[in-house]
Amino acid sequence: MSRVYNFSAGPAALPLEVLEQIRDELLDFHGAGMSVMEMSHRGRHFAAIAQQSESDLRELLAVPANYKVLFMQGGASAQFAAVPLNLTTPSACADYVNTGIWSTKAIAEAKRYCKVNLAADAKASGYSTVPQQAEWVFTPDAAYVHYTPNETIGGVEFPFVPLPPGGVPLVADYSSSILSRPIDVSRHGVIYAGAQKNIGPAGLVVLIVREDLLGRGREDVPTVMNWTIMAAHDSMPNTPATFSWYVAGLVFQWLKRQGGLHAIESLNHAKASVLYSAIDASGFYRNPVAPGCRSLMNVPFTLPDARLDTLFLEGAAQAGLAGLQGHKLVGGMRASLYNAMPLAGVQALVAYMQEFQRRHG
Amino acid sequence: MSRVYNFSAGPAALPLEVLEQIRDELLDFHGAGMSVMEMSHRGRHFAAIAQQSESDLRELLAVPANYKVLFMQGGASAQFAAVPLNLTTPSACADYVNTGIWSTKAIAEAKRYCKVNLAADAKASGYSTVPQQAEWVFTPDAAYVHYTPNETIGGVEFPFVPLPPGGVPLVADYSSSILSRPIDVSRHGVIYAGAQKNIGPAGLVVLIVREDLLGRGREDVPTVMNWTIMAAHDSMPNTPATFSWYVAGLVFQWLKRQGGLHAIESLNHAKASVLYSAIDASGFYRNPVAPGCRSLMNVPFTLPDARLDTLFLEGAAQAGLAGLQGHKLVGGMRASLYNAMPLAGVQALVAYMQEFQRRHG
Repeated sequence: MSRVYNFSAGPAALPLEVLEQIRDELLDFHGAGMSVMEMSHRGRHFAAIAQQSESDLRELLAVPANYKVLFMQGGASAQFAAVPLNLTTPSACADYVNTGIWSTKAIAEAKRYCKVNLAADAKASGYSTVPQQAEWVFTPDAAYVHYTPNETIGGVEFPFVPLPPGGVPLVADYSSSILSRPIDVSRHGVIYAGAQKNIGPAGLVVLIVREDLLGRGREDVPTVMNWTIMAAHDSMPNTPATFSWYVAGLVFQWLKRQGGLHAIESLNHAKASVLYSAIDASGFYRNPVAPGCRSLMNVPFTLPDARLDTLFLEGAAQAGLAGLQGHKLVGGMRASLYNAMPLAGVQALVAYMQEFQRRHG
Repeated sequence: MSRVYNFSAGPAALPLEVLEQIRDELLDFHGAGMSVMEMSHRGRHFAAIAQQSESDLRELLAVPANYKVLFMQGGASAQFAAVPLNLTTPSACADYVNTGIWSTKAIAEAKRYCKVNLAADAKASGYSTVPQQAEWVFTPDAAYVHYTPNETIGGVEFPFVPLPPGGVPLVADYSSSILSRPIDVSRHGVIYAGAQKNIGPAGLVVLIVREDLLGRGREDVPTVMNWTIMAAHDSMPNTPATFSWYVAGLVFQWLKRQGGLHAIESLNHAKASVLYSAIDASGFYRNPVAPGCRSLMNVPFTLPDARLDTLFLEGAAQAGLAGLQGHKLVGGMRASLYNAMPLAGVQALVAYMQEFQRRHG
């Protein structure tokens, strides 16, 4: 068994300790005589898993008591529809900030359900920066303001939490940066995050919603997308994605053992700093993002000649560095440095990059 | 490690061989240096998993070439909405047959999106039988006819495949009996099945749809529920539930090793026969379902006095027999005998039931 350093953008690396625990419990969870995969979501074992995972997540993110935490299926893409279906009427308007490919997808889906105002759009910068909030144009009485704190493909991260007009809830797609550092949940109405980056296996989405925003769903929201029904049934009006939920709970416990989000933030800063510094100092590799908006989690970079890409990836694979190919829409390389990536992995990547430059630079 | 016989209705027992394979591959899938949970759904390893699993399922069910096989998220409950959203306009009418609690849920969700005609309703029998098709009243030009081949809670299974009027597609919620015996897919327009009974972990739904039924989705179907988009992107317009899909693939391979669906049907008949015979011969236990409509997969039964239920369940747990408590809506007991339950498990249950009757009968 030889584990690689996995820089995949998602599904992504999980902590080895968590995988070992899953493996050791796989045939018999805590004396239940069965795997978590096999047990009823209504039984006492899974009830304890669900309760503990929610409690740990609340502790990690310091979720205020007036917020519900939901564990739903379908990934963040399902929430692209669920957000307007739960928060608007067809004649309402929602404000969106476009900072890249994932914002664009969220906007396209929202437009199918309500009016959408682009409060800001980073298009002019080639989506390499976050527009200053002073330039944003809000709709009076918007149903909500939606933003994408971290663009997984572009590698652009918000250096601030937006401040919508008074009373307008802020909605965030935190898929690729949740749990990478503390979040001020209280400044948000809704936070959602697909699990497959910093939480657990694909197929799960965590949603944190302020209680006063429940009960606004329109009549045609599919029941499985209805936050109000989900909240009323502890995320189990139907069978939830039990195994993914269990793995998420193990990741939360692992994070607590690492010292929580302040500790992991320091580590994430250290990791990103090592890589960005190496890129900037190289005169060979290049990251296109404005320095103040560079993502801690996703670091896209290019080589001076795209014809070197294949060679770079082949050598990386031989060096035990996986998942570095950039997204097909943008090309180049991308190193995702989620919580489970150790500093040693980033150091190994930088050593490989420097060696590659020596040979081909 | 001591495994129990797990009679849970879902999530449910998985074959031990499959669990062992998951465990052995958990930290390093086939030399990839990572778990399936951690790998990109766009990479070559997962592409091979996806392709093989679809190919194996097609072989097991003899799916004709003009059907698409989709692996979606959200369970069967998501399809309760997706079926009308993909097949009707708001003014259209769909025919439903009500044979119990799961049909009732499907009907309630469909009514939110289109007109629903109850072509037949087993209510008069207390949902203990399937109405003869001669008594059904179809709507001319219905968008589809929907039925539930096996009612997981009531333990009622169709002894026939319904024959809708010419040209009207037949839609089946096969969640709790798919892969338990051969199905004539060609007589259906759409078959869907939540994974957590006979396929794999909760959080996955398999959908088999005849190609000519694609392209009928209404404008407001959420993208993640849109069969046409799913089919156009090989079930990956967004990140699928990769790990659950992988486990499903292992279950398909296990089923092929058992000899396929004819072999498993024989075994399932043998298992059900042992249990139903013991119940009927006991003069103590009772199954309420009409003999011709008894489910091969889910066997509800009652004790003569509900005050014995707790004692029965406690003794069962001590004997290593888990998951026998009936659904909260109906009470009593239920033994689910999915493919992964060996004959020895049913024999152990019957031995325990007979011993319990000797002591308390």
